[in-house]
Amino acid sequence: MATAPSVSYSMTIRLEVPASGTSVSQLTTAVESSGGSVTGLDVTASGHEKLRIDVTIAASSTSHADEIVEQLRGVEGVILGKVSDRTFLMHLGGKIEMASKHPIRNRDDLSMVYTPGVARVCMAIAENPEDARRLTIKRNSVAVVTDGSAVLGLGNIGPKAALPVMEGKAALFKRFAGIDAWPLCLDTQDTDAIVEIVKAIAPGFAGINLEDISAPRCFEIEARLREALDIPVFHDDQHGTAIVVLASLTNALRVTGKSIDGIRVVMSGAGAAGTAILKLLLAAGVKNAVVADIHGVVHAGREDLVDAVPGSALCWIADNTNPENLTGTLKEAVRGADVFIGVSAPNVLDGADVATMAEGAIVFALANPDPEVDPAIARETAAVVATGRSDFPNQINNVLVFPGVFRGLLDAQSRTVNTEMMLAAAQALADVVTEDELNPNYIIPSVFNDKVAGAVAGAVRDAARAAGASAPRVRPPRRCCEDRHGRLEPARRGTRRSRRPFKVGGRAVAPFV
Amino acid sequence: MATAPSVSYSMTIRLEVPASGTSVSQLTTAVESSGGSVTGLDVTASGHEKLRIDVTIAASSTSHADEIVEQLRGVEGVILGKVSDRTFLMHLGGKIEMASKHPIRNRDDLSMVYTPGVARVCMAIAENPEDARRLTIKRNSVAVVTDGSAVLGLGNIGPKAALPVMEGKAALFKRFAGIDAWPLCLDTQDTDAIVEIVKAIAPGFAGINLEDISAPRCFEIEARLREALDIPVFHDDQHGTAIVVLASLTNALRVTGKSIDGIRVVMSGAGAAGTAILKLLLAAGVKNAVVADIHGVVHAGREDLVDAVPGSALCWIADNTNPENLTGTLKEAVRGADVFIGVSAPNVLDGADVATMAEGAIVFALANPDPEVDPAIARETAAVVATGRSDFPNQINNVLVFPGVFRGLLDAQSRTVNTEMMLAAAQALADVVTEDELNPNYIIPSVFNDKVAGAVAGAVRDAARAAGASAPRVRPPRRCCEDRHGRLEPARRGTRRSRRPFKVGGRAVAPFV
Repeated sequence: MATAPSVSYSMTIRLEVPASGTSVSQLTTAVESSGGSVTGLDVTASGHEKLRIDVTIAASSTSHADEIVEQLRGVEGVILGKVSDRTFLMHLGGKIEMASKHPIRNRDDLSMVYTPGVARVCMAIAENPEDARRLTIKRNSVAVVTDGSAVLGLGNIGPKAALPVMEGKAALFKRFAGIDAWPLCLDTQDTDAIVEIVKAIAPGFAGINLEDISAPRCFEIEARLREALDIPVFHDDQHGTAIVVLASLTNALRVTGKSIDGIRVVMSGAGAAGTAILKLLLAAGVKNAVVADIHGVVHAGREDLVDAVPGSALCWIADNTNPENLTGTLKEAVRGADVFIGVSAPNVLDGADVATMAEGAIVFALANPDPEVDPAIARETAAVVATGRSDFPNQINNVLVFPGVFRGLLDAQSRTVNTEMMLAAAQALADVVTEDELNPNYIIPSVFNDKVAGAVAGAVRDAARAAGASAPRVRPPRRCCEDRHGRLEPARRGTRRSRRPFKVGGRAVAPFV
Repeated sequence: MATAPSVSYSMTIRLEVPASGTSVSQLTTAVESSGGSVTGLDVTASGHEKLRIDVTIAASSTSHADEIVEQLRGVEGVILGKVSDRTFLMHLGGKIEMASKHPIRNRDDLSMVYTPGVARVCMAIAENPEDARRLTIKRNSVAVVTDGSAVLGLGNIGPKAALPVMEGKAALFKRFAGIDAWPLCLDTQDTDAIVEIVKAIAPGFAGINLEDISAPRCFEIEARLREALDIPVFHDDQHGTAIVVLASLTNALRVTGKSIDGIRVVMSGAGAAGTAILKLLLAAGVKNAVVADIHGVVHAGREDLVDAVPGSALCWIADNTNPENLTGTLKEAVRGADVFIGVSAPNVLDGADVATMAEGAIVFALANPDPEVDPAIARETAAVVATGRSDFPNQINNVLVFPGVFRGLLDAQSRTVNTEMMLAAAQALADVVTEDELNPNYIIPSVFNDKVAGAVAGAVRDAARAAGASAPRVRPPRRCCEDRHGRLEPARRGTRRSRRPFKVGGRAVAPFV
């Protein structure tokens, strides 16, 4: 698959060219003949003899960018200046910051934001710790925690190198759900240590988003933290992926007219994402799932499973899938299957394999950037094809899920996140696509569809409340918005309203209901 | 000491009063006769019969606020509505938030802030971890870490109740030094655990500000973290206090015409702050210091010290102070002393004690809110008096120190903070007060003096560079702002400029130097 020029490989080059003649048009010709794309051209200085031009160019890879620069160097009369990489420039100094909600202009402000006024707020929380959800950032804060052991597809690159991803995640939390997330990149990959650290930092947060922690450690870390903490713990690589896959499958089945309990699903990949997808699909009603990993189809009689530790993830898969006891390779398992879901490696299937699937086949090839099968080729015989890439239809992207899920959990002050909430999130996401919109190339909305986060949040919030997972109702602090006649209603209304993130204005009357 | 009405005990009361008559003036009279102060009065609704008024009132304590409300209830024709506490309102939902530096408007933005573009930035850092100081929030981030064991003067109120203070601290970091700080309130008070946790979260931060951790654990935690980490670790309760005290003493000595190596200093309090002040004063040249705690003057022969563990904080004090081998009480030690510094408890001295001090006595009574001696009485005989309170001259406040200290450390990319840097900070802070400004009631600038943070930051930055404590010079990432002709100067200039926190604009040309 050739990759088109993309802004994620975009650079700006400063050039000096003769003021007269055809140098400028030669420049654009040179870029385009190299396969690049000119996305901006600013003349930043002009004289009788020379022009200074900043040309912004999209390339398709780092080496392609180098080729384009070499091509420009060959244009007669052109002097090359500095080359700036737009993606790197955007990361200089980091992508997020801390901001104060209130100005601190004078001693009065200081005495309320800090000492001595803050002491009364501290004492109110000391007397009633649940008030931390009203009177502090805890209400709306999520820790984005990684150990840098499985960052994107880059592998174990460590905590510092993981930080740009975690900052990006925090930025997305804010953009799509108004959540204040802060990255914590841990300098340890020890399971016990990570569990202890996350337990210890929990008081200041209303949720924990685990990110890019490698399997199988991620399963144990998540399970132990869920057991220990009174705030929800969500491993996005597992559950975010599982929810968006289930939502996409729900709509793909609407397109193909099949029922979830009648299909055979073949999965490639038994890592963190694969295992979570499998579990959610089973919870959603899939009866016949088959999982293949690098050693072929998982079944109880497989050599490496006979001696495996009972309770391991692979044993769980063997016990809960493959009702027909298939053996052999992925390619063999795919024959006659209704659905293929890949979260593994590039090009494990080809077009001929997809052609052996059942009529109305659904193919989700999610390995990134190179899918399990070329989506254009898969589409020749499959009814619905989706990938993780943004340059094909039906992009299956976690960004559709995690902001809304956490917004719902935070709004419900949920102490946990469970399968019912995830199923509700998937259904809500699927339902964003109306009957009129639904077609094989539109089973899942765009990440910029502004209905998504709210729909997912509402479904998760309602499921959390229905599950009784919400924190105890918080008693308003005595002096916060008390009615001197003992009427509680206005205070209660204030409490409900204030679950949403909002700013209290400088004017004292603003928060009155 | 009677306390004046303060905005930190400010409330807004909604009232309904008859539209005609003298009710409004009766209201203000009632407030003022109760000792309160009307700071705002808004008519929020008006009719033929009635007015609705929001009155904002400063009281001097919580019980005083209650008294005022009772007084208002007695005014004829007035109906009381909701009473809102302005300090609590300011804390609703927390005081800080996370903000994204870049808008995420479309897929192009997303592909640079997050996947796939971010992967190249991650790989650049994986290849050269020091690039994290250029390409991530690490450059400008400080973790504000507490275990809630010694919060303000409130004691061991735990991590959740400590959060409002830590949020306030983060807000001050931003307000006075442009630093992005995030609070981490730990759910453990185990020394080993805290050390391990802070070590683990360090990769994403350029500095650690320990806060409100009780003595003696704070000494060990700080020492072990300094040993382990390649970023500066600063316990503000110790070192921030020590620096602002030394700066104040420096200027008080300028006022009284005494030299630091000739004075006798008597201190009350041997906790975290006291010990740190003592050490910095000795480093600054004090030859004769005497420390008293609750058991009286510390000397090697004191009963509780004979069997004390060698190396304990108290043993260190005994070994390094009290050259004249004084024994007895604080009051006895103060006789003839040049300087008294209290970081202990209210009213341990009275005016008669201060009167026994040497001529040109300097009294720093820093217990908060009630000082070791009434400053008005001390001032009758002492030449210079300072407190921690904002309602007397010469407020000794850490806010004068920690923002500038960290700004300097971050600008120098310092791997540590040492005594030389603290001495430099104290001198720079003292020097903000010019000869023309200096007098017994102005030895230390206001926290809102806009020269303070910059002066302290510059001194610390220079001291850090002089000490060779800066991180290795960061090689600009290859594609970030490269000169294709191999000229390094523009890139270097870019590097220098970018040490300051700044935002890269959406326009690609903005960061060109």
